[in-house]
Amino acid sequence: MLPRRPLAWPAWLLRGAPGAAGSWGRPVGPLARRGCCSAPGTPEVPLTRERYPVRRLPFSTVSKQDLAAFERIVPGGVVTDPEALQAPNVDWLRTLRGCSKVLLRPRTSEEVSHILRHCHERNLAVNPQGGNTGMVGGSVPVFDEIILSTARMNRVLSFHSVSGILVCQAGCVLEELSRYVEERDFIMPLDLGAKGSCHIGGNVATNAGGLRFLRYGSLHGTVLGLEVVLADGTVLDCLTSLRKDNTGYDLKQLFIGSEGTLGIITTVSILCPPKPRAVNVAFLGCPGFAEVLQTFSTCKGMLGEILSAFEFMDAVCMQLVGRHLHLASPVQESPFYVLIETSGSNAGHDAEKLGHFLEHALGSGLVTDGTMATDQRKVKVPCVLLAGDGNLHLNVTAEAFSPSLLAALEPHVYEWTAGQQGSVSAEHGVGFRKRDVLGYSKPPGALQLMQQLKALLDPKGILNPYKTLPSQA
Amino acid sequence: MLPRRPLAWPAWLLRGAPGAAGSWGRPVGPLARRGCCSAPGTPEVPLTRERYPVRRLPFSTVSKQDLAAFERIVPGGVVTDPEALQAPNVDWLRTLRGCSKVLLRPRTSEEVSHILRHCHERNLAVNPQGGNTGMVGGSVPVFDEIILSTARMNRVLSFHSVSGILVCQAGCVLEELSRYVEERDFIMPLDLGAKGSCHIGGNVATNAGGLRFLRYGSLHGTVLGLEVVLADGTVLDCLTSLRKDNTGYDLKQLFIGSEGTLGIITTVSILCPPKPRAVNVAFLGCPGFAEVLQTFSTCKGMLGEILSAFEFMDAVCMQLVGRHLHLASPVQESPFYVLIETSGSNAGHDAEKLGHFLEHALGSGLVTDGTMATDQRKVKVPCVLLAGDGNLHLNVTAEAFSPSLLAALEPHVYEWTAGQQGSVSAEHGVGFRKRDVLGYSKPPGALQLMQQLKALLDPKGILNPYKTLPSQA
Repeated sequence: MLPRRPLAWPAWLLRGAPGAAGSWGRPVGPLARRGCCSAPGTPEVPLTRERYPVRRLPFSTVSKQDLAAFERIVPGGVVTDPEALQAPNVDWLRTLRGCSKVLLRPRTSEEVSHILRHCHERNLAVNPQGGNTGMVGGSVPVFDEIILSTARMNRVLSFHSVSGILVCQAGCVLEELSRYVEERDFIMPLDLGAKGSCHIGGNVATNAGGLRFLRYGSLHGTVLGLEVVLADGTVLDCLTSLRKDNTGYDLKQLFIGSEGTLGIITTVSILCPPKPRAVNVAFLGCPGFAEVLQTFSTCKGMLGEILSAFEFMDAVCMQLVGRHLHLASPVQESPFYVLIETSGSNAGHDAEKLGHFLEHALGSGLVTDGTMATDQRKVKVPCVLLAGDGNLHLNVTAEAFSPSLLAALEPHVYEWTAGQQGSVSAEHGVGFRKRDVLGYSKPPGALQLMQQLKALLDPKGILNPYKTLPSQA
Repeated sequence: MLPRRPLAWPAWLLRGAPGAAGSWGRPVGPLARRGCCSAPGTPEVPLTRERYPVRRLPFSTVSKQDLAAFERIVPGGVVTDPEALQAPNVDWLRTLRGCSKVLLRPRTSEEVSHILRHCHERNLAVNPQGGNTGMVGGSVPVFDEIILSTARMNRVLSFHSVSGILVCQAGCVLEELSRYVEERDFIMPLDLGAKGSCHIGGNVATNAGGLRFLRYGSLHGTVLGLEVVLADGTVLDCLTSLRKDNTGYDLKQLFIGSEGTLGIITTVSILCPPKPRAVNVAFLGCPGFAEVLQTFSTCKGMLGEILSAFEFMDAVCMQLVGRHLHLASPVQESPFYVLIETSGSNAGHDAEKLGHFLEHALGSGLVTDGTMATDQRKVKVPCVLLAGDGNLHLNVTAEAFSPSLLAALEPHVYEWTAGQQGSVSAEHGVGFRKRDVLGYSKPPGALQLMQQLKALLDPKGILNPYKTLPSQA
């Protein structure tokens, strides 16, 4: 049995602390909460249309008559103030900027429906936006698309305390939903760094994975129903709250991960798991990559149903963490580090299982050092490189945006990934940034079917144009 | 702590025993294994076209030239012997019978592709068939559709011992896959009564739920990739083996639960969970329905991650079980009975959790009697009425098929279900039987989108016609 030492993460890394970071590698907190607007003194982000070779499609432009119509549909919810439009035009990574002149803030599905009916008739392009925390530029306009914000669609509609089924509007902030269901002894089936700003509708539209994926699986399994407004304003009701429903095609699946290009998600029904009563965290040093994999297999076997996270980072990453975040490693220097989290219903049983596993791992040389913390405060240790779900976050940083560096790196990374039968976007989606590298992960037949589905559901292409689908079919 | 008494189920109910039944309410075993052909002396099933008001669509009929072409595509795999065609023309419930004169037995996706290209050109209708164990007539021809059997597509293509990802052909029998992965310390994420005959491709095509749903969730979450042959013979490759892949629309989802009407699934990639080391079963008597629900809530909280099944039956059902299956209840007579199964990685921990729960349930009067069995042999207790996933199997039996009885019962059951926001087919799909009651569970907009998707993917309507979609759009 290992000695229990507190983990050396500082207080600001603790979940729920003011300005807490949910994940290393992407600063969240107040900046993200404000919707990624530029802090005073930060240089202006160049316009996307100037930085990328992209041409505006022949959509109409917003007229005074359109504005008047929108004002009738969402009284008090039409934003045209240039200052207020700065933040929602810029993406979270601050390398993309649109020039939308109108942001609409509907409160209901009916209002979304009326907006889209109008835009469809007038051939006006629409950019749906939740918390604007996406990493691939899916949530900001490329040109002057109308921004349709779900920020005011933030009501919980129902929660069932036996089944754990939550029904809520798309604009509910993930962290607020977490708080709501945790008060009722449940948790959300997903958790991610941007939770303080991201909207559940955006999570579903981008098929967000996050930190609980290993345990609770994908949104394709946990989302039970959706209400979606189609491009022409039709409200598609797939809002069942049933764990099992086999009545025909599972239409809601089409919209999970389609990034707002097939319809705008307005209401979500989602299954929440019971809140675990005990959470334990262990941080380990591993002598090599083979041992990391073996540690994963062993802990899947020995921890079984209580394993809720398995993450690793290498020595270089730990050095950067020390240098930039001033975090000391809680274990001896090692070539690799592994973080294991367990969540279960019985603290004693879980600690015993974890203890047995650690004894075995140390005894067999899989692990050279380790520390364990009983974590009542739920220490959030950031997703770093590879998670138990086979997901690699490669973070390359440079002084400034450099198209030549990008051009030198990207093809190599994508080709290598494709060669390994990997996905060029396991987690963050396609959006604007990755639409032209889809071919590395999807064969031509699949891309063609995507185009056909887009043409079927949004024949005028007004929903989130320039996103998700390759620019040349 | 309750005394441990062996459960009173007879040996033939044990899993793996010869001729074992996997589920009460549907006899499986040799009969099902043979593909539901009629035993000698059983009366002939009337033709579907004579029993139901359905009209043949204007497809071509199979010519000598077609047979010759098929023989070139699948040498030795063209069955035209009327005797051999009897069984695959009749459904498992023995109330539907088609009159197909050709059954094809391809071995590869390429052969399926060539068959469909030919059928598409010739406007020949095709009925895909796996184990022919469906309950709604989705797997048998209505008229003379060509039966395309996946029986010879039964190879495991790969298994990854760290991730538990299995890739196999669609015609693999579920029980054989279970055996294969269990030898490698994993289990299939689904299990059902018909496992001795059903094919994994059919499971995916019908989005089968089954006994492990509560723990491992739906196939929309556990199926990682599919290869599908479309109506015109195009092979659609969505066969990733990645837990996370967010590169565009999740096309494979379209085919999960679409009952072979949008494409024929030829290869499946599926995530297998680690094999639990301990399985426990408790059988309890409950004084009322409110107590059944409260017992469910309580055991979700106290058993948490190890709860793998929660089923209940009422007193009438238990009486029928006693009368017809000669099974004695292992607990005192009660208005309701509950079965709880746990699966976990540590036998001691699991038994302790279950013991605590039972003590609490007895002490608080939720449960009036109970018995517990440590189940090394994995006693299979059948799905009876309501499962922990909110799924009700209403079994009404009569001496013989009675259209008037059916007509008197069905509208009432469907209306009541719709009134409760329930699904008219939580588990068994739509197939031929339920296509005209979809409107109880799906709004017109959703039915219209289903029709549009069908028209997009199968414009000639040759794939499993007369199924899944309402007869009048």
